[in-house]
Amino acid sequence: MLLSLDQSSRRVILVDVFEWLKRLRTTARNFTLPAREERGARNTEKVNLKPYTPEPKVFLGQLAYLQLSQFEILTSELKYSPNTQYKAELGEAAAKSFEKYRAISKKIAAMGIDPTDAMDPFVERIETFHSRTNGLDWYETVIKIYLVSGLLDDFYRRLAIGLDPITRAEVEKALKDTKFEAFAKKVLIESMARDAQLGSRLALWGRRIMGDVLLELRAAFDNRKLAGIAKTKKLTIEEERAVNLASYSKLEPLITELIGAHTMRMDALGLTA
Amino acid sequence: MLLSLDQSSRRVILVDVFEWLKRLRTTARNFTLPAREERGARNTEKVNLKPYTPEPKVFLGQLAYLQLSQFEILTSELKYSPNTQYKAELGEAAAKSFEKYRAISKKIAAMGIDPTDAMDPFVERIETFHSRTNGLDWYETVIKIYLVSGLLDDFYRRLAIGLDPITRAEVEKALKDTKFEAFAKKVLIESMARDAQLGSRLALWGRRIMGDVLLELRAAFDNRKLAGIAKTKKLTIEEERAVNLASYSKLEPLITELIGAHTMRMDALGLTA
Repeated sequence: MLLSLDQSSRRVILVDVFEWLKRLRTTARNFTLPAREERGARNTEKVNLKPYTPEPKVFLGQLAYLQLSQFEILTSELKYSPNTQYKAELGEAAAKSFEKYRAISKKIAAMGIDPTDAMDPFVERIETFHSRTNGLDWYETVIKIYLVSGLLDDFYRRLAIGLDPITRAEVEKALKDTKFEAFAKKVLIESMARDAQLGSRLALWGRRIMGDVLLELRAAFDNRKLAGIAKTKKLTIEEERAVNLASYSKLEPLITELIGAHTMRMDALGLTA
Repeated sequence: MLLSLDQSSRRVILVDVFEWLKRLRTTARNFTLPAREERGARNTEKVNLKPYTPEPKVFLGQLAYLQLSQFEILTSELKYSPNTQYKAELGEAAAKSFEKYRAISKKIAAMGIDPTDAMDPFVERIETFHSRTNGLDWYETVIKIYLVSGLLDDFYRRLAIGLDPITRAEVEKALKDTKFEAFAKKVLIESMARDAQLGSRLALWGRRIMGDVLLELRAAFDNRKLAGIAKTKKLTIEEERAVNLASYSKLEPLITELIGAHTMRMDALGLTA
């Protein structure tokens, strides 16, 4: 998982998560115009993320390492760039995106915390996530970072609601740069125009990326906390399953919004999410 | 070769180059106190590099790609960083060094030239150089870039003498950043203090790097031009050899200075050049 919101153990019944994701994806595809009857049957309230915002050190530490790891992944593709122009532009976009890391890391240091100490607890988790979603080539890596940073920057912005207003504003500011996003759109659209096969490969890959990111996010929440059940309470498998479904339902509006934004990101490339 | 100063063919009699390098290295080791009698027997005049400065597009194109390639190599080591702190610091130093590339590339664009067009003719040569001097691990790569960028930035600063004063000042400014140098010194000294074996490995590697860079630089000069012999003149093997030696002799002061600075860079790490 990419996040640590609560350290208590959680058992995720994967089949439920997948069913739930499938349902959500259908809703999200109709994001702009949800059907009235469907809306009635579902949770469409805003999720209040405030109780789930981790303490600043944890929030900023994981966000910082996430940005650093994205810089690492982007730059490690420089050598595979299809041409010198794309290499130069990728370098520029990556260097610019490094400033996100730099801003967050500076904020951590300004709080009297060593940025490395703040990041270290999240290194392994984030590396595991990246190795499971390792792109096969230059294009898959570019679209991966485009989608992952889109989804996660979005999520962190929402989660920042529980931080003090100054830190929250600084997080907003740090995540503002869209240089990489513009670069990714440009090169992916150009490259798919030259190679029709690439488009269908990247469409599939994009769906996989979204699925993986959402599973990570889901797993980061504590189902019992979301469902309002005490940590220590003994539950049968059926009860645990009910708790999980109740908590998924609680997160639905958030996930629906994230998928909606993801769909627009795919649309911008001319791909169906 | 890393440079293109003149396109005419050149036959380098390698045995001579190596002998000459060996001799130079001995002199350079005593750089601060050259023996009086030795000085008399050798060429100690300044080399006037002005006639060898390529046109701005060529000069800036190769320098830009060199910087971009160094950024590529540095960042591709991020994933092998021994710890999160070194990774974060390497990221910072690399991102900062990207600004060298950015400044030179902007200058090229300001001259109405596409930076990619200016760089492309040098991509293959520079890549070949890098693949021949590929570090075995994180430390070898860090010291490689420390030494190579030290030697080459130094050389390009000298070669910039033939550019117009404004461009020359801009090159000086672009090459000013020492963040990576400071980072390299810090981590290499720390790491060698923990691992004595590392020091002797890096000392050998540093000599190899210097040798390779100097051979590249040597090969970039046209021996006949240096020796004042017409391009078209037919020469016997003996005469060609004499021309080569004459031109090596002419470059001696430059190479001696570069080796002197290299020796100081090695000294700063506690290593013998």
